[in-house]
Amino acid sequence: MDDDFLLQTNTARELYHDHAAKMPIFDYHCHISPKEIAEDIRFDNMTRIWLNGDHYKWRAMRTNGVDERFCTGNATDWEKFEKWAATVPYTLRNPLYHWTHLELRKPFGIKELLNPESARRIWDNCNEQLNSAGYSCRGIIKKANVHTICTTDDPVDTLEYHTAIKTSGFDVQVLPAWRPDAAMMVENPENFNSYVGKLEAAADRTISTFDEFLQTIDARHLFFHENGCRLSDHGLDTIYAADYSDHQIKAIFVKIRSGNILTPEEILLFKSAMLYEFGIMDHKRGWTQQFHIGALRNNNSRLFNLLGPDKGFDSIGDLEIARPLSKLLNRLDSEDKLAKTILYNLNPRDNELMATMIGNFQDGTIPGKLQYGSGWWFLDQKDGMENQMRALSSLGLLSRFVGMLTDSRSFLSYPRHEYFRRILCNLLGNDVENGELPNDMKLLGQMVEDISFNNAEKYFGFGK
Amino acid sequence: MDDDFLLQTNTARELYHDHAAKMPIFDYHCHISPKEIAEDIRFDNMTRIWLNGDHYKWRAMRTNGVDERFCTGNATDWEKFEKWAATVPYTLRNPLYHWTHLELRKPFGIKELLNPESARRIWDNCNEQLNSAGYSCRGIIKKANVHTICTTDDPVDTLEYHTAIKTSGFDVQVLPAWRPDAAMMVENPENFNSYVGKLEAAADRTISTFDEFLQTIDARHLFFHENGCRLSDHGLDTIYAADYSDHQIKAIFVKIRSGNILTPEEILLFKSAMLYEFGIMDHKRGWTQQFHIGALRNNNSRLFNLLGPDKGFDSIGDLEIARPLSKLLNRLDSEDKLAKTILYNLNPRDNELMATMIGNFQDGTIPGKLQYGSGWWFLDQKDGMENQMRALSSLGLLSRFVGMLTDSRSFLSYPRHEYFRRILCNLLGNDVENGELPNDMKLLGQMVEDISFNNAEKYFGFGK
Amino acid sequence: MDDDFLLQTNTARELYHDHAAKMPIFDYHCHISPKEIAEDIRFDNMTRIWLNGDHYKWRAMRTNGVDERFCTGNATDWEKFEKWAATVPYTLRNPLYHWTHLELRKPFGIKELLNPESARRIWDNCNEQLNSAGYSCRGIIKKANVHTICTTDDPVDTLEYHTAIKTSGFDVQVLPAWRPDAAMMVENPENFNSYVGKLEAAADRTISTFDEFLQTIDARHLFFHENGCRLSDHGLDTIYAADYSDHQIKAIFVKIRSGNILTPEEILLFKSAMLYEFGIMDHKRGWTQQFHIGALRNNNSRLFNLLGPDKGFDSIGDLEIARPLSKLLNRLDSEDKLAKTILYNLNPRDNELMATMIGNFQDGTIPGKLQYGSGWWFLDQKDGMENQMRALSSLGLLSRFVGMLTDSRSFLSYPRHEYFRRILCNLLGNDVENGELPNDMKLLGQMVEDISFNNAEKYFGFGK
Repeated sequence: MDDDFLLQTNTARELYHDHAAKMPIFDYHCHISPKEIAEDIRFDNMTRIWLNGDHYKWRAMRTNGVDERFCTGNATDWEKFEKWAATVPYTLRNPLYHWTHLELRKPFGIKELLNPESARRIWDNCNEQLNSAGYSCRGIIKKANVHTICTTDDPVDTLEYHTAIKTSGFDVQVLPAWRPDAAMMVENPENFNSYVGKLEAAADRTISTFDEFLQTIDARHLFFHENGCRLSDHGLDTIYAADYSDHQIKAIFVKIRSGNILTPEEILLFKSAMLYEFGIMDHKRGWTQQFHIGALRNNNSRLFNLLGPDKGFDSIGDLEIARPLSKLLNRLDSEDKLAKTILYNLNPRDNELMATMIGNFQDGTIPGKLQYGSGWWFLDQKDGMENQMRALSSLGLLSRFVGMLTDSRSFLSYPRHEYFRRILCNLLGNDVENGELPNDMKLLGQMVEDISFNNAEKYFGFGK
Repeated sequence: MDDDFLLQTNTARELYHDHAAKMPIFDYHCHISPKEIAEDIRFDNMTRIWLNGDHYKWRAMRTNGVDERFCTGNATDWEKFEKWAATVPYTLRNPLYHWTHLELRKPFGIKELLNPESARRIWDNCNEQLNSAGYSCRGIIKKANVHTICTTDDPVDTLEYHTAIKTSGFDVQVLPAWRPDAAMMVENPENFNSYVGKLEAAADRTISTFDEFLQTIDARHLFFHENGCRLSDHGLDTIYAADYSDHQIKAIFVKIRSGNILTPEEILLFKSAMLYEFGIMDHKRGWTQQFHIGALRNNNSRLFNLLGPDKGFDSIGDLEIARPLSKLLNRLDSEDKLAKTILYNLNPRDNELMATMIGNFQDGTIPGKLQYGSGWWFLDQKDGMENQMRALSSLGLLSRFVGMLTDSRSFLSYPRHEYFRRILCNLLGNDVENGELPNDMKLLGQMVEDISFNNAEKYFGFGK
Repeated sequence: MDDDFLLQTNTARELYHDHAAKMPIFDYHCHISPKEIAEDIRFDNMTRIWLNGDHYKWRAMRTNGVDERFCTGNATDWEKFEKWAATVPYTLRNPLYHWTHLELRKPFGIKELLNPESARRIWDNCNEQLNSAGYSCRGIIKKANVHTICTTDDPVDTLEYHTAIKTSGFDVQVLPAWRPDAAMMVENPENFNSYVGKLEAAADRTISTFDEFLQTIDARHLFFHENGCRLSDHGLDTIYAADYSDHQIKAIFVKIRSGNILTPEEILLFKSAMLYEFGIMDHKRGWTQQFHIGALRNNNSRLFNLLGPDKGFDSIGDLEIARPLSKLLNRLDSEDKLAKTILYNLNPRDNELMATMIGNFQDGTIPGKLQYGSGWWFLDQKDGMENQMRALSSLGLLSRFVGMLTDSRSFLSYPRHEYFRRILCNLLGNDVENGELPNDMKLLGQMVEDISFNNAEKYFGFGK
């Protein structure tokens, strides 16, 4: 894994080193904590910054026969690191193997491989650096040449940490992104009603009817807008687009507000209404909406009950997507209210479906109005990213792609952009070598710079 | 893109230049106009022959931010060409980039790349040629070394242009193909009843009952047969194979003929009956039936209402296929009435499903009785064709493949056969290089010639 | 196809020759006959050992236009061999081409290609060897360096041949595997009740209630356990995991025992109950359960009625998998009764779904507790195996993979392990060449040896 890692051709090397590497990072979707950035926190050791919260690593450790105590449990930080180091040699061909070593190189400058023999040495070295100047979370962000970060925030969030970051003069643009999943999570009346209470508090309003519910959400949407947000995000197993009447939705709202459990059909109708309404708000304020489609979450009840969500027990679903997705986008488009939209799929069998779906609603108003999002979650690896780019290339315009995002919970994940850019440059380099693309470095270099940074910067319009 | 475009090995180059390139083109499925061939029309300029009607290019232009005026609208021909030329550099890695330059090389001999700088030069050059001898549509067909063309025709068609072509002595075989989609499109009673009226007129018969409806269609089927047709084609989102009784179908027919809207269940039953009946007719007359499965059409209502169908607003669906497809084919086979059949899928996730489905009904009567059709529509590109051939190879017999078709609306699309043949030869060449195939040029050369032309010629039996 | 067949890099060659080739074969799932091993039978000629029973070859022959008489019919053995030899040159790019020549090299030492010209020569040569010392079925197994074989056995089986093999002192471990498909095949009351009768006879018990049915099956499970079985297997179109009550299942059992046909819903409930109960038994005795998911069987009624099942008329299905599979595994896991489990999928579009599904239930108790099984049936070929390993690598830990099995009905199929190992070594070699894996032959050599043999030996725990 030297400087030319993944770059198999001279063209790839030139494209990467002369064009991709120099571009700043536009990380328009991630899960890092604005509070931690606001407080510019430091991490005592590698387990705290690198292992805690990383469900990818936990899954690998569990698969390798490592007890839960060393993943999410009460083992010491060193014990956890040691177990991870012992797992790394078993991750050959998994993206964790590449991520691990890319993340040790940047920002730590470590070039040896992590394994039981090197574990203590690397632990000591990294921890020393973490405790030195320039390794606060802001320092790490700066070292990674990050231009913009969009976090993931609930509508009830006060955005106080975003305000604090802005007033602190931190010269990396950190913006909120709107993730209203909880506002349509109507499976459990108690949870939903508790959430409505939080909404009332956040907006300082009373919610008695569905209309007031929507108005309150819209008020929060405006609040997010005023705080620089231009981007929403929805995590969905599939798209909800059943036919419904306003009357039905109002009745469903009354029912759940009275503490009654909804039928599956009612849940579907309510979610269908909410996806539409969210889309209307996003369009009204010129935002971009993101749909992350296809996860089957919380499969392991035993460990969910012990550990909660996002602990590494999610996988890939296989629900029908095309018709409901087309229906929702078409409804919004028919009313001339379709916002810029990015579609992400978790099941790679749907790559081509997604890459052609966006073409249905490209209307010439702006380049790449609908985007097919980069390889997401389990697909955020070499095969996954290559397959996403192949589908997008063959069925759409790769040149107009807004490119990579970390989607990460860690401040050490910025090398995923490097990983993506190397893979992109390598794809193009191979094509040139095979005579499938012209050997025009000006054209290809521009394309690489655009996909690495320029396209995203123009597309989201955060400056506006 | 020189003579060895896409041919990475010496074996590939030898296979292509010594075997594939010399074979004539057997274009057994396309959408060009028999009227235009009968009239041997000319096109004034490149926009008329190359851009008008090409939804692939429109989709790319819209994605690139080009206004509809320059796609399907009232911009001038030159303005449209100019916008296309400006879009081409953004199509890198899309098949349009390769198609564009292959189509400029043949028949125009243009070897420079199309972009804003070269646009006017190429426009003038091509237009001059279009207005010279040998560039009528027949001239272009002849230049491409086409042996046979099957158009796509509705059962109500008079086939007068086919008759005219035949009597004109044009030495390329041009045959009709039977596309009876309208006869099972029962979603809209008004449209359906209007179509029944056209059927009555075409056959000079009265249709009062479902039996008479079928008899009339069969009379048209015979008429097509007498005019040389040996091939049907069906465009379907999925296969319809619900259980039904004759009594039910007759009642459904009465219902829609009275102008009543059918239920979704009734529509399914009717379509199930029609697919079966079409299959019976095809078998009776020794035809081949083609099923194009998996498109989700007309997703964009706004632009459908403005522009109509086939304007670039279709995409890939994800309906269940295996059980209904097996059921229909099995029903026909059980009655010993399964015609030669070609299955095409639009969602590449179904490649292996299709490639194994054909194996269920290969009965040893003729080689490759059931065919897995070449990469279709969105899949008519390098990855799509390679993946189709990989699936067919691993799960069936590539040697017995009837190969490529243009499926195009343009007289300039014959280089798609060249594209396909280069990809085929390259696949085989790589295999030889990797030691996966014997370096036996006689065996492989014969295989390439067969897939390029001989298999199709034998399979369809148009001479009979 | 020399010694370096499929090994494109020096690394691949070293990994294969120094590490993979020397490992014995652990064939933990196949369909060979324990009776034939017990009797150490011989085969008179190549048709009897190589063509009879091989639905892969029959499918290819039918596709090639060969009459059924030469597949399953009454042609002479030589005529059948001759027809197969004539088909082989048409199987280029199909795994049969590679399998055929690997199987002629081992154990027969034949290096020429099979075709009409060489057919008689190869026939004579092989038949002479088959009739010489060392070519009984046990001789062939020994030549292939097989360590362990698990056959596929019905719960009603007496296992007498397994007993005979054990007492004969054959030094290859031959064990039964539990395949209780018939015990949940409740589509046909007559067949099911006949099967219950066989169960009663095998266990010398009376079955009047569902509880007694389960107890009897469990008694047979114990009997299999006492005979060394540690492995079950289920052939399923999809996973059954509907909600049911014990009361419902008991009533369904009474209904079918009275000769009544069950509704589709009742069949689903019954199968859901049985899959759960089988899982409980497997966990109780420390077995591994295998799920083979996704075949659409017996598509061709005409030839099914003539020839019966497993004659080459099966294909790939496309039913929903993720939710029911998650539900069954989660139910078992929630009760702390999830056995070691191997999931195999037949539709490769589900590769990534499966590779992430196993991650949901890895709990750190043993390495690779849940396994994503090797490319199965139609996917047991180069692309299929590579894609399975790519998915497993990117989404799980390839290092912990229990590797290959023949799944075959023939004693000549052991080269499939060689094929798999060459493909594995080639994948790793390419990665090293591309700088994606460290050039650490100790690490990679160990990984290859583990996947080839060690992982399976440790995982199944047959010694215990």
